[in-house]
Amino acid sequence: MVEPVFVHEKNPEAVENVCAVLKDRFGERFATGQAMREQHGHTTTWLSNQVPDGVVFAQSAQEVSDIVKLCAEHDVPIIPFGTGSSLEGHLNAPYGGISIDVSQMNEILEVHAEDLTCRVGAGVTRKQLNDYLRDTGLFFPIDPGADASIGGMAATRASGTNAVRYGTMKDTVLSLTVVMPDGSIVRTASRAKKSSAGYDLTRLLVGSEGTLGIICDVTLKLSGIPQAIAGGICNFPDLESACHAVIMTIQCGIPVARIELLDPLQVKACNDYSKLSLKERPTLFVEFHGSKASVSEQSALFADIVADSGGEDFTWTTKAEARTELWSARHDAYWAAHSLRPGAKGLSTDVCVPISRLAECVTETQKDLEEFGFIAPIVGHVGDGNFHVLLLLDPEKPEEHDQAEIFLERLAMRAIDMGGTCTGEHGVGQGKMKYMAYEHGAGLDVMAAIKRAIDPQNIMNPGKILPKVE
Amino acid sequence: MVEPVFVHEKNPEAVENVCAVLKDRFGERFATGQAMREQHGHTTTWLSNQVPDGVVFAQSAQEVSDIVKLCAEHDVPIIPFGTGSSLEGHLNAPYGGISIDVSQMNEILEVHAEDLTCRVGAGVTRKQLNDYLRDTGLFFPIDPGADASIGGMAATRASGTNAVRYGTMKDTVLSLTVVMPDGSIVRTASRAKKSSAGYDLTRLLVGSEGTLGIICDVTLKLSGIPQAIAGGICNFPDLESACHAVIMTIQCGIPVARIELLDPLQVKACNDYSKLSLKERPTLFVEFHGSKASVSEQSALFADIVADSGGEDFTWTTKAEARTELWSARHDAYWAAHSLRPGAKGLSTDVCVPISRLAECVTETQKDLEEFGFIAPIVGHVGDGNFHVLLLLDPEKPEEHDQAEIFLERLAMRAIDMGGTCTGEHGVGQGKMKYMAYEHGAGLDVMAAIKRAIDPQNIMNPGKILPKVE
Repeated sequence: MVEPVFVHEKNPEAVENVCAVLKDRFGERFATGQAMREQHGHTTTWLSNQVPDGVVFAQSAQEVSDIVKLCAEHDVPIIPFGTGSSLEGHLNAPYGGISIDVSQMNEILEVHAEDLTCRVGAGVTRKQLNDYLRDTGLFFPIDPGADASIGGMAATRASGTNAVRYGTMKDTVLSLTVVMPDGSIVRTASRAKKSSAGYDLTRLLVGSEGTLGIICDVTLKLSGIPQAIAGGICNFPDLESACHAVIMTIQCGIPVARIELLDPLQVKACNDYSKLSLKERPTLFVEFHGSKASVSEQSALFADIVADSGGEDFTWTTKAEARTELWSARHDAYWAAHSLRPGAKGLSTDVCVPISRLAECVTETQKDLEEFGFIAPIVGHVGDGNFHVLLLLDPEKPEEHDQAEIFLERLAMRAIDMGGTCTGEHGVGQGKMKYMAYEHGAGLDVMAAIKRAIDPQNIMNPGKILPKVE
Repeated sequence: MVEPVFVHEKNPEAVENVCAVLKDRFGERFATGQAMREQHGHTTTWLSNQVPDGVVFAQSAQEVSDIVKLCAEHDVPIIPFGTGSSLEGHLNAPYGGISIDVSQMNEILEVHAEDLTCRVGAGVTRKQLNDYLRDTGLFFPIDPGADASIGGMAATRASGTNAVRYGTMKDTVLSLTVVMPDGSIVRTASRAKKSSAGYDLTRLLVGSEGTLGIICDVTLKLSGIPQAIAGGICNFPDLESACHAVIMTIQCGIPVARIELLDPLQVKACNDYSKLSLKERPTLFVEFHGSKASVSEQSALFADIVADSGGEDFTWTTKAEARTELWSARHDAYWAAHSLRPGAKGLSTDVCVPISRLAECVTETQKDLEEFGFIAPIVGHVGDGNFHVLLLLDPEKPEEHDQAEIFLERLAMRAIDMGGTCTGEHGVGQGKMKYMAYEHGAGLDVMAAIKRAIDPQNIMNPGKILPKVE
């Protein structure tokens, strides 16, 4: 394990003092029970659980500010918590401290339909927001697998299947209200669509994983619900042809909304799990958004590309039910994958490379998986060059875990060597800290300088993102 | 004039020492002549010229790094220079120092057609890049008025008429090579389309106006040249109806590539200048990009919206020559405006508001202009809520300039009060520093902390962006 640059001494007496004040002020909304603490350290991660000393459920930016000031005064770490769906140990408390749970800050604060923007509490989840928006004709497009909180998604720079069309949280967040390490409440930007007025604090906070401040509310760009949606599926003799089709699609300017790759193992899993009979070959799932005429045209253009690239069996439909059926393999991929090895625990990782290197990167990764003997299907948001490997590990066999660590390191280094990044959408947390020096070189010093300047006490989610570099 | 937070002592002896070393190393590529220095301080700005002590023409990141180290050693300010088309005194040297001109770093370094990306030297201009790309079927969409350098456009977070479709430099820059104030050369990100690996240094540097580092090369996202382009024009009885049409266009998800507003005064100027006979009413110019079928469909949808909003005379065409003619008024707007008051000097300013407040903001601004008696047409990138006012001032009448300063302040404050920003695309420089505290509040302290951490000597373009706040 690489040591983080920002370690923090444990100070039981200080923690005790902070807990006493929090208990007094927040009563039932402050918890120190073991189960609650474990739940707030443990997330859907392969890293072991490191529990915070207490969990406080905040209900406003002012409360968060008060808690931060209290912790700063006593030099006690703070770990912000949304829904707990992060994957790389973002929520662990290696130096103890207070977990600030923002799930009760879940109000939709403003919807400006004319501007296609809204402002929501950090604890609002993406599904909650889309349910709320249903009658407005608008939707919020970013869709990581989990029903994550918008605050957490901003903090980890999340994205998902339709980032190829709608971008990531970097592109979708207009502004944030953030409590800084000194307790000040900062609004990072106005809600204008663009601005050249000074440093881009919004983008600095998006993806900072709670290490610079605590996101309390988020102003988002929304999109109009498309008039028509077409879903399609096709398969290819090999990975190269599938990737070629993706590249052609993007180059031709087809505004594809989703373009997802399943490798043959994942297709097999879906066949077994959902009683389908898809060809067990590299398979692309596509979705087109637009007017009826436009999605027809996009589908027809894509059909030509599939044929030119050696693909087969392209089927598409705009009917909602048939579309869901067509896409069922993709929708069920995660659970289907788990059924490949009953009793196994999934370790999910992601990397992102320039799309021209995607076939090569996936192929080399598959060779690695074979060499290690892992059962590990691959699913990719291939329009962005981003793909996931789900390693199915036997929790009873620690040696598998050790092997997995070697595999993960090779994968991350491979992606970086190909001009890519060790994570396209999961974030760094504790798990990917060790690749940061290799990926960023001297840039890491700049990040550390920013961290030191904004959080000189290092109380904000210490032990994440930035490794120690001597 | 608001005092900048980061002032810098002048030290003639240090400057002399630096100049001697630069002369020795760079010979002809280092200039101290008055004309050259004036040209590098003076830009297309209303602020008075403050010349640097010398100008060095760098040809590589390594040279920039060497120059920065030299200046850091002697504590001498550095001002990066691209083409000199910035508008708010970004290039002035209030504390003297060395202007680093990157215009000779003008190589197209890489084009990755499969990935729709390229990497170019900071001195490459946008027209040069698009000429180079012509045969690839790709183009770089961002188009500020001037043929600016890509490095300068990144530094000021520039945009232009088609930001509504293609975004701004914030969205288009994938990665930067930057020389930091200590001379280290940092690559801010990989060329993957997305990443969650740590702080977003790219976005921190984009829009930092040379105050945090010197951009040496830029990796950009490119777009496919659309199969078809349709251009159109229509007019409205009043500003509200024109803005309503814009809002409907965006809400309906029409992927309009350009949607530009000219106010009646600007239309009058264009009629006079180009011998046209357009109705002198609020006028929208639109452009649609896509397949032939798609641009037809977009134009038809837009025609319905125009009619519903009370607009008239909507004409559109996909023929290149006819399109250029249709758009001639927009293309010539800047020069036409100047002809409204021969001998006047134009002072160009911009603000950006949520689109729902646009009609109100423009109307109040027009009232102000009337009250002051200014001749000042308005042109807007209205799909983004961004508009420009061109004040035509008599350089012989300083009292007009004083009045203009009052007008500018009212405009900036109005935009901020409406949930917008004091600048959508021009940047802060020296001219808009005084609005930063009002716009950003406590956020300004965060910006200042970042500046202090990254540039503790304050040698990078001192006296810009950040005002002194006590």
